[in-house]
Amino acid sequence: MRPKLSVVTLGVRDLGRARSFYEALGWSSIPAEPGSNISFFELDGAVLALYGWDDLAADAGLPTVPQVPGFRGITLAHNEPSEADVDRAYERFLTAGAAVVKHPAATDWGGYSGYVADPDGHLWELAYNPFDDWT
Amino acid sequence: MRPKLSVVTLGVRDLGRARSFYEALGWSSIPAEPGSNISFFELDGAVLALYGWDDLAADAGLPTVPQVPGFRGITLAHNEPSEADVDRAYERFLTAGAAVVKHPAATDWGGYSGYVADPDGHLWELAYNPFDDWT
Repeated sequence: MRPKLSVVTLGVRDLGRARSFYEALGWSSIPAEPGSNISFFELDGAVLALYGWDDLAADAGLPTVPQVPGFRGITLAHNEPSEADVDRAYERFLTAGAAVVKHPAATDWGGYSGYVADPDGHLWELAYNPFDDWT
Repeated sequence: MRPKLSVVTLGVRDLGRARSFYEALGWSSIPAEPGSNISFFELDGAVLALYGWDDLAADAGLPTVPQVPGFRGITLAHNEPSEADVDRAYERFLTAGAAVVKHPAATDWGGYSGYVADPDGHLWELAYNPFDDWT
């Protein structure tokens, strides 16, 4: 079995709102048929999908549970090639409507990163990693 | 800002257990320094990272909250080029120790998929998509 992450699907409460948020980052959604209830973004090696929260739970056959504010167990990261680029990406996310989670700062592992949350609370780390170029 | 998903980091309760699970899929972790508290897997375009659940929450400055069994808002997908390959990947995940979530079956969108959960409850969809090759 190939080592491959094909798609990350985010459960969203309002597909139009979520799609507009990611498009406001300058990311282009893959054209979909009219009335489609899912959106896809090609993120250079993996696909980001947006789908209704309850529909995604149902697709897996799992119950939806009340969401308590706090950590949900997973983070996504968008890496940039410098600290200044992280600052710019952070501002771009905020301008698109992301919530501040952690202002960018030096990390204890020698990098630089901050965190924001998308309209549905999904966490994005914006990071500069001086050791591995995953931009 | 480039459209790029660099890293997906999963919060885990036992790093050794989680790393062994993903290695049992045949995926190779990137060699780390002895005593490292994080593991990385290069998944052909995006990196999968494993990091302590509480440490990851603390890195984002968020509180950990009690986990209720059920849907946590996000799924990862590993696509395969045929239904038979999905069945094989599903069995491989189960042999590695994944929990059954949904047995592979035809989907209403014309594909074929099943769901499993890793040792920390992170959801993987194993999918055949006849319309888009994201393998």
